[in-house]
Amino acid sequence: MRFDLTVPFARYVAQYYNDINFPFKRYQIGKVYRGERNQKGRYREFYQCDIDVIGKDKLSIDNDAWVISLASKAFKAIGLSNYKFQISNRKILKGLLSEIEIDEVNEVMGLIDKYDKIGKESFSKELEELIGLEKAQYINKVLDIKGNSKEIGEKLLKLNIGNEYFIEGVEELNKVCSMLSILGVEDEEFEINLKIIRGLDYYTGTVFETMLIGNESYGSICSGGRYDNLAEKYTTNVLPGVGISIGITRLFFVLKEIGFIDNYKVKSNLDYLIIPIGDTMEYCGKAMKYLEEKNYAVTIYFDEDTLKKKMNYANKLGVENVILIGEEEVLENKVKVKNMISGSNMSLDYKQL
Amino acid sequence: MRFDLTVPFARYVAQYYNDINFPFKRYQIGKVYRGERNQKGRYREFYQCDIDVIGKDKLSIDNDAWVISLASKAFKAIGLSNYKFQISNRKILKGLLSEIEIDEVNEVMGLIDKYDKIGKESFSKELEELIGLEKAQYINKVLDIKGNSKEIGEKLLKLNIGNEYFIEGVEELNKVCSMLSILGVEDEEFEINLKIIRGLDYYTGTVFETMLIGNESYGSICSGGRYDNLAEKYTTNVLPGVGISIGITRLFFVLKEIGFIDNYKVKSNLDYLIIPIGDTMEYCGKAMKYLEEKNYAVTIYFDEDTLKKKMNYANKLGVENVILIGEEEVLENKVKVKNMISGSNMSLDYKQL
Repeated sequence: MRFDLTVPFARYVAQYYNDINFPFKRYQIGKVYRGERNQKGRYREFYQCDIDVIGKDKLSIDNDAWVISLASKAFKAIGLSNYKFQISNRKILKGLLSEIEIDEVNEVMGLIDKYDKIGKESFSKELEELIGLEKAQYINKVLDIKGNSKEIGEKLLKLNIGNEYFIEGVEELNKVCSMLSILGVEDEEFEINLKIIRGLDYYTGTVFETMLIGNESYGSICSGGRYDNLAEKYTTNVLPGVGISIGITRLFFVLKEIGFIDNYKVKSNLDYLIIPIGDTMEYCGKAMKYLEEKNYAVTIYFDEDTLKKKMNYANKLGVENVILIGEEEVLENKVKVKNMISGSNMSLDYKQL
Repeated sequence: MRFDLTVPFARYVAQYYNDINFPFKRYQIGKVYRGERNQKGRYREFYQCDIDVIGKDKLSIDNDAWVISLASKAFKAIGLSNYKFQISNRKILKGLLSEIEIDEVNEVMGLIDKYDKIGKESFSKELEELIGLEKAQYINKVLDIKGNSKEIGEKLLKLNIGNEYFIEGVEELNKVCSMLSILGVEDEEFEINLKIIRGLDYYTGTVFETMLIGNESYGSICSGGRYDNLAEKYTTNVLPGVGISIGITRLFFVLKEIGFIDNYKVKSNLDYLIIPIGDTMEYCGKAMKYLEEKNYAVTIYFDEDTLKKKMNYANKLGVENVILIGEEEVLENKVKVKNMISGSNMSLDYKQL
């Protein structure tokens, strides 16, 4: 029983290194298991959805923006709004801590990671105890920089920090933000949040989380980042990658809690439901075949019932277009198309559909 | 760990009986577990794909043909040929055995179920030992009826067996065969095989298996049938259904063994791969957004590489259409579309795509 989708993926890429067409993009939805105690929305058995892009030796930073843009498209596709990608780059903090000569790097990073949980006051206090007032104030000053992503990027560079990690991190972060716009992610969908770290290991550059505005207490609904070398445990080849992960089961829990699921209108995946009236099945079959060849999703209501019951079924199904085929339609070589939303009726040759 | 997809489905339908829109159609792909010893292509952990249609109190026999037609469409979609649906109806044998007053119904059915394994000779010998020469010969005569589905249907009726199950079974079988044609399943794709039983429990009417012609030894790759009452263990409501099941993991094993997988040319699910040449990413993003709004699957090659390497990537990916966008294209507000199969090039406005 796998505990995530990443380790099996890393082994796969290492094993088929010579056959894979890099940059290699894969998405996967699958069941995984955790040994943790159950919490609200966090189960021992759940579905995970991962997208990763893996390069051979190198991988453009544009891919970091691309995976975030995919999450944006997915959320837009289901009609979710009010989410915000919070993006950072771990090189920025790494460079900053190096610049001001912090020895307790892991402790400070760990503290920043819990910033949102413990609050600004406790954070500042603990940070000061750890590294002294002056350095703590400097870090707080950087973390407090406000503005849109462009402004924060500019303000960060104006700090005149010479550390190469810092500069590289800011440049990468700026690149990701400008690529996000190019890829159709709107300004309102993302912001820079330098407090995003995503744990201490694994990620090396871009990191991001996704909060539901007004429901931040649920935590991130989609997160990920850049890692230098996916499969270092399994191969000496260097495989930089960027990945995104959605805990589908937990996302459903959160969407249920905020009322999104209950108000969700499931759209039928059927383009047409054909309803035979009388002995017209052969003609219905022909119409279905024609529509399927045009790549429409079609089915026939096979069971003998009253027309009222059949229309009621179509209505509950949420299918937009119903095709009614009675004996008259067969004689005239036509079909009657009823739009269930507008209520309009059309009589036409099915080859006109 | 569930051992099949049917029991959880039955419980689901029983539980949500009042909310479900009947006839209820569901498909599901999922992992299941078996306690059996591993055999060739049969594992303890595997993926199963099920389609079922469940009615409330009644369900038209047309649905039996419909689920088989879905399997036909799936096989055609992957380019598999040489399969044959072998169809029967359990009421026929039930009625036949009743007509000739067989007491050992389960034993005879069990024997017919292993007919193909033990061969005609052993079958006849064992059958004779069980029910005597005369009755055994009569059963053999019925099982031996040859012809296309229409002819077998006619010959069965000409036996003048008055038993109601027998007549109902033959009529249902004839109905299924004629609906298969209406639903676009070709004559070569199916045949009647009265020896198909599919175990002793569960199925009550239509039963079918699917053999690969020339590779019958692998057994059925897709099977199913009609059952009178899906959820009788969980509810007093009567829920007749018809279902189909494909053991995906085993199907892959079989397809691998017969060489189908190795010769399979995976088609890219991408409609367009956009390749930027030089500093044209912003324009590439616009083109991608436009094409995505037209429901095309599009991506951009983000990494900086030689054009040769980028085209090589496109080629290996199997994508049919590549869009090349250089600085010249941006100036002229055009894109260059290369068809990777014909090799043809076109220069046009991307809004013409």
